[in-house]
Amino acid sequence: MSQRPLNVGLVGGGCGAFIAQPHQKAIFSDGTRRVVAGALHPNPEVAMSEAQKWPYPIRGYKSYIDMIEDQKNLPEDQKLDYILIVTPNFVHFDPAIRAIEAGIPVMCEKPLTVNLEQADELVAAATAKGLPFAVAHTYLGHWSSWFSRFIVTSGLLGEVRWADAAYIQGWLAKQIEKAGGEDGASWRTDPKRSGGSLCLGDIGTHALMQLRFVTGMDVTKVSAHMETFVKSRLLDDHATVYCELSNGGKALVRTSQICIGHKNDLSLEVAGTKGTLVWRQEESEKVTIMLPGQPDRVYWRGDVQPNDGFLGDVPECLLKEPRIPAGHAEGFHDAYARLHREFEKDIRAWKEGKKFSYDHTRYATVLDGRMGLAFVDASLKSNAQNGAWVDVKLA
Amino acid sequence: MSQRPLNVGLVGGGCGAFIAQPHQKAIFSDGTRRVVAGALHPNPEVAMSEAQKWPYPIRGYKSYIDMIEDQKNLPEDQKLDYILIVTPNFVHFDPAIRAIEAGIPVMCEKPLTVNLEQADELVAAATAKGLPFAVAHTYLGHWSSWFSRFIVTSGLLGEVRWADAAYIQGWLAKQIEKAGGEDGASWRTDPKRSGGSLCLGDIGTHALMQLRFVTGMDVTKVSAHMETFVKSRLLDDHATVYCELSNGGKALVRTSQICIGHKNDLSLEVAGTKGTLVWRQEESEKVTIMLPGQPDRVYWRGDVQPNDGFLGDVPECLLKEPRIPAGHAEGFHDAYARLHREFEKDIRAWKEGKKFSYDHTRYATVLDGRMGLAFVDASLKSNAQNGAWVDVKLA
Amino acid sequence: MSQRPLNVGLVGGGCGAFIAQPHQKAIFSDGTRRVVAGALHPNPEVAMSEAQKWPYPIRGYKSYIDMIEDQKNLPEDQKLDYILIVTPNFVHFDPAIRAIEAGIPVMCEKPLTVNLEQADELVAAATAKGLPFAVAHTYLGHWSSWFSRFIVTSGLLGEVRWADAAYIQGWLAKQIEKAGGEDGASWRTDPKRSGGSLCLGDIGTHALMQLRFVTGMDVTKVSAHMETFVKSRLLDDHATVYCELSNGGKALVRTSQICIGHKNDLSLEVAGTKGTLVWRQEESEKVTIMLPGQPDRVYWRGDVQPNDGFLGDVPECLLKEPRIPAGHAEGFHDAYARLHREFEKDIRAWKEGKKFSYDHTRYATVLDGRMGLAFVDASLKSNAQNGAWVDVKLA
Amino acid sequence: MSQRPLNVGLVGGGCGAFIAQPHQKAIFSDGTRRVVAGALHPNPEVAMSEAQKWPYPIRGYKSYIDMIEDQKNLPEDQKLDYILIVTPNFVHFDPAIRAIEAGIPVMCEKPLTVNLEQADELVAAATAKGLPFAVAHTYLGHWSSWFSRFIVTSGLLGEVRWADAAYIQGWLAKQIEKAGGEDGASWRTDPKRSGGSLCLGDIGTHALMQLRFVTGMDVTKVSAHMETFVKSRLLDDHATVYCELSNGGKALVRTSQICIGHKNDLSLEVAGTKGTLVWRQEESEKVTIMLPGQPDRVYWRGDVQPNDGFLGDVPECLLKEPRIPAGHAEGFHDAYARLHREFEKDIRAWKEGKKFSYDHTRYATVLDGRMGLAFVDASLKSNAQNGAWVDVKLA
Repeated sequence: MSQRPLNVGLVGGGCGAFIAQPHQKAIFSDGTRRVVAGALHPNPEVAMSEAQKWPYPIRGYKSYIDMIEDQKNLPEDQKLDYILIVTPNFVHFDPAIRAIEAGIPVMCEKPLTVNLEQADELVAAATAKGLPFAVAHTYLGHWSSWFSRFIVTSGLLGEVRWADAAYIQGWLAKQIEKAGGEDGASWRTDPKRSGGSLCLGDIGTHALMQLRFVTGMDVTKVSAHMETFVKSRLLDDHATVYCELSNGGKALVRTSQICIGHKNDLSLEVAGTKGTLVWRQEESEKVTIMLPGQPDRVYWRGDVQPNDGFLGDVPECLLKEPRIPAGHAEGFHDAYARLHREFEKDIRAWKEGKKFSYDHTRYATVLDGRMGLAFVDASLKSNAQNGAWVDVKLA
Repeated sequence: MSQRPLNVGLVGGGCGAFIAQPHQKAIFSDGTRRVVAGALHPNPEVAMSEAQKWPYPIRGYKSYIDMIEDQKNLPEDQKLDYILIVTPNFVHFDPAIRAIEAGIPVMCEKPLTVNLEQADELVAAATAKGLPFAVAHTYLGHWSSWFSRFIVTSGLLGEVRWADAAYIQGWLAKQIEKAGGEDGASWRTDPKRSGGSLCLGDIGTHALMQLRFVTGMDVTKVSAHMETFVKSRLLDDHATVYCELSNGGKALVRTSQICIGHKNDLSLEVAGTKGTLVWRQEESEKVTIMLPGQPDRVYWRGDVQPNDGFLGDVPECLLKEPRIPAGHAEGFHDAYARLHREFEKDIRAWKEGKKFSYDHTRYATVLDGRMGLAFVDASLKSNAQNGAWVDVKLA
Repeated sequence: MSQRPLNVGLVGGGCGAFIAQPHQKAIFSDGTRRVVAGALHPNPEVAMSEAQKWPYPIRGYKSYIDMIEDQKNLPEDQKLDYILIVTPNFVHFDPAIRAIEAGIPVMCEKPLTVNLEQADELVAAATAKGLPFAVAHTYLGHWSSWFSRFIVTSGLLGEVRWADAAYIQGWLAKQIEKAGGEDGASWRTDPKRSGGSLCLGDIGTHALMQLRFVTGMDVTKVSAHMETFVKSRLLDDHATVYCELSNGGKALVRTSQICIGHKNDLSLEVAGTKGTLVWRQEESEKVTIMLPGQPDRVYWRGDVQPNDGFLGDVPECLLKEPRIPAGHAEGFHDAYARLHREFEKDIRAWKEGKKFSYDHTRYATVLDGRMGLAFVDASLKSNAQNGAWVDVKLA
Repeated sequence: MSQRPLNVGLVGGGCGAFIAQPHQKAIFSDGTRRVVAGALHPNPEVAMSEAQKWPYPIRGYKSYIDMIEDQKNLPEDQKLDYILIVTPNFVHFDPAIRAIEAGIPVMCEKPLTVNLEQADELVAAATAKGLPFAVAHTYLGHWSSWFSRFIVTSGLLGEVRWADAAYIQGWLAKQIEKAGGEDGASWRTDPKRSGGSLCLGDIGTHALMQLRFVTGMDVTKVSAHMETFVKSRLLDDHATVYCELSNGGKALVRTSQICIGHKNDLSLEVAGTKGTLVWRQEESEKVTIMLPGQPDRVYWRGDVQPNDGFLGDVPECLLKEPRIPAGHAEGFHDAYARLHREFEKDIRAWKEGKKFSYDHTRYATVLDGRMGLAFVDASLKSNAQNGAWVDVKLA
């Protein structure tokens, strides 16, 4: 039976902010979710005029405080089912904590907050209420991320010995940021708005999340070397973190924003006692598995069979989920859409009384977001001590 | 200023039909278009129950005749702005001609019709009214298709001597179709519902369209060899067509559905007097250009600069259009979305009185759809004469 | 026990002729063969001075007639064990027939001769004597060619329906040849020295040979379209030949020398009823096999196991032959070396009285060379009749 | 004018030892070098019987001591021009020092010795005599290594900020070695025969050498983490070394032998202030360069032009050296051959009185070999201190 689409409210996204665009496509994507409201800019007047100019009609608000406040005045079918926070890092915490207090589920861009303390607070608040809270680690939304997780956790590769997670970009190889500028480069490089780390916080946390999601393990200790290659910068634009995993294995998280020509080169390799898995975000339609005595095995989304002599019982979702056949590539927007689609399912279930589980989602939750902050926090301390081992504060 | 989203009505798409899914995502994608109605199945009862079960509320109709008829009863903001025809081939003509008569713009799946006569009729009817009419040649919607067209028509490669357009699949290597079956394999292999050709009509026309769009040239003569490798089939499942181009150059259109392991392996290579361009649909984020005395040049969507010493003035749309940065792949849904987005622009302009131009669109129109039929028609004749040269009936 | 290295005499190769270089490396490669003599140039004086300047000492001759003649004067351990003919096409026949008459085994560059009549004559002469006679179809020397042959003939792919063999180059996209010039471009484009075909004879025959070797089948009929894109040329620089195979399957032989940027882009794809094999010369360390319900399977030289659940009993030679481990690439010289190594084995066996078999070698023999000529001959006739079907004269 | 081929004597190589094979092919490759003698095994009887069974005649010796001793008894044209040491690591030093004393040039497999002290001694002895002494860092022999060095040192990439050098293998993922075994896995994992490191010494030094050769810089300090993933092993099978470069830049040397499926996955990436270079050993025919505002530029061996608008004056050797055209791949044997060819040139020049320069060769010398040992030495110390920074002892 047809259901009313979920209503989503935007916090941020005005004036052509990049990240709001793919989220919108992802929200609308299935016809079962829609953007209905927005507090699009910190300046109230800009917020309202942006709402006026929005390509489709939405309810504009001067601030997210107003938007949250207004919920009680709205008829049931116009209330927000979740809010999406797509502001710079330092404006994540406040709207999130207010939404939690108002009982509105949240999807927040990463990194969750600008420091571990704020993250701890959000975790406490959200879990106290049992409120659905997602963090937009987009790349988990690739089919191949789920498939990789299935492969590793199925035991096909044996015990994990080593993992190499890297996210390499080149767009900050030159000093393109401007003091006080509002563009992505400017606020990201500003410690006040970005937090204690540029590169490791912004994209290293994606590499970490990919590693944690696919292996199902935590990073427990780090030995970090962080660099600032563009001289006048105050934060790292390159980082290399040697890690201990919760099973005693080791891993490397490598990340850079100064390697010219690299685009969004996120990759993960997991080497177990029985085999190796290789995944690249920029070719996210496939996963390569290497087993002794076998040719390289390249699995394509949309073309996996449940019993191929190597894979055990492949979950239905990995066989059915991909609606478009192999060879018709999914992309970045599809990954975003999968996050919102899963979040929608969990919100609908939660509204019908089912308890929200922070641990067994197929997207990152507030707990995962907090782990990103804990990882950056430990890495900053290790780096300050010339790479000495520092424990990561697990929850 | 915000505008009312365009209203779209579906003809077909019920019971899990594949091709309706990506279209829906594409329609909703920007928030400026939405599906509001549907005649989802030839059986009126099934049509209504499918509409009831639709994931979001739509106005269900027992037939497309009813849906078109009902338009006059609706308030302005609920009327259809275009209909989308996603039925099997033999149910393209009738809803299309009725929509034209009712003055409703049409986007139709390819092939346009089951024979050239029907196609001629649609062209005549649509152009008489000046009605916007698109044919869903999806792959034109890739940024890389537009970029390829820019490269070839800019003259960077010199005069086109040779082009190789191929679309290779493997899903029909076994006889998976069933007599009378309603799935995609079954109706496609049934001459009554599919038309005079299986493989050449279904996917060879995509290769042709890619060739025509990128080079800006027509195929004027063909020498065709068509095969039916799965014995009991009545139609071709493999075809090789040697072509003469309108500039006197030559080309090959190769297509197959029996090459196991090939997914949607559409590719185009254009060799000119000064250089060569290589494009593959399954890696549609990039275009490779090979010039004498130069390394291979790999251009990525989202990372092209207007003055790189080789490219002339790159149109703004090729620089700005890609909203997501390089390394965050667009995919099949994004290609579909680009078609609908361009069609939306043209419909909005047409509603404001601008004349619709069938020749200068960035998607295929009813004229292009007709050319596909003319190509298949000539190829069937050539094949019947052991590959003798046959003229293609240009419009 | 150590054996005296085989003695090889060169016909041609002076003045920096390209093809003599890789042959020399291949001959010396194992320490068990060596170049000891040469008639290096048609001009007797140049021949002698080139021999003087040769990087290592060899016995120079004014002509191949002298070289062959001189054999009877030499002590046993200085006699030639085989001659290698690396002259332009029109100088293949005469030295070959003289060597046959003198009872000296021959390895000859391809194409074997400039017309089918000469080829027939060489076949008759060689087989009458049972003399070892190889034709240098280099690419058969890749491990991956042997492996491909094993895969197809093992039946893993089922019955062959379709094969696509292509050899695409770009070096003749401009008219770089000069009337009367002695460089490779000039004599190749000169009908008197090259034969009736440029592109199809020079490289199309490689594609044909790869197809015949890997499938074990002959091309029985052809429908050919040949082009001369560089206007003033007298011979084809591009050809497309639709083929019937001896099992009733079909194939395409595509070849070009005007596709700028293509280097030595020889590829073969074989599509059977049960699976598909893909091979590319420029990435000749691997073979990809695609089977239904399986991921793409990429086999690497040096890393194949005899029982992987799909491959039957892999011949020892395919497991042991590759002396260098996977990941340390073999290349063009190694392919040449494998031809000479196999030829050495057969010559040593023949000298000990074993009959030379023209059919079961792992390199091309005079019979295969003749088939290349027959293929070109039939294609020229078909092209002259607008692509009508013409039978290939099988031996 | 033809010259007598250089005479080479083997130390080691009997009983099917792997590394002797490619060296032999490389030695013979041009016809200007040949193997004439060998002390093939530590057991004198085995050494003599192996020499007897050698595929071509050589002078066998019971030991390398005998072989070196015997030189004074031989006529000039039979004396050794250089010896090649292809024994396990712990048998490098003694034959090398004896050859130096006897005034015979040496090419030695890497690592040069089992500890830094021995390496220092060899450097002192060789340089005192000015004797040509090469270390077989094979991968420098790829054309693409030379081309990479040209690119980086030309300044095209600006100042080097970051380099990532990795050598990843998988063949030691299981404990295949046996105590006392003579195979490659067994002696390599035995501290007495291999030295203080398995993985870092065996293949990490290749990554280091590639980095040093291409950038022209030294590693001055290291922070190392080394692992032994296969439990019972005594030496590292995996290592990650964070490095400081002599220009103040940073680098990572990553190496593993437990990543199943990786073959000889040596790669180097160099990120400068103006661009990035990417090289992979397993695809060593090409080098990719990424510059801002440019498409990815893929340069192929054999297809580089001296003035393409980006490259400055490309040295003749990079244009002419590759005798086989692009698309006909060079491989591992060709890399080896290039080392021996360059060494031959330097030996011939040295015999004619030219001073041997240890710094300006296009292969590794005894000085480079020593740097590998210094790097391993510093890394072992750093690892013992939990990754603390340790200075590398420069010469």
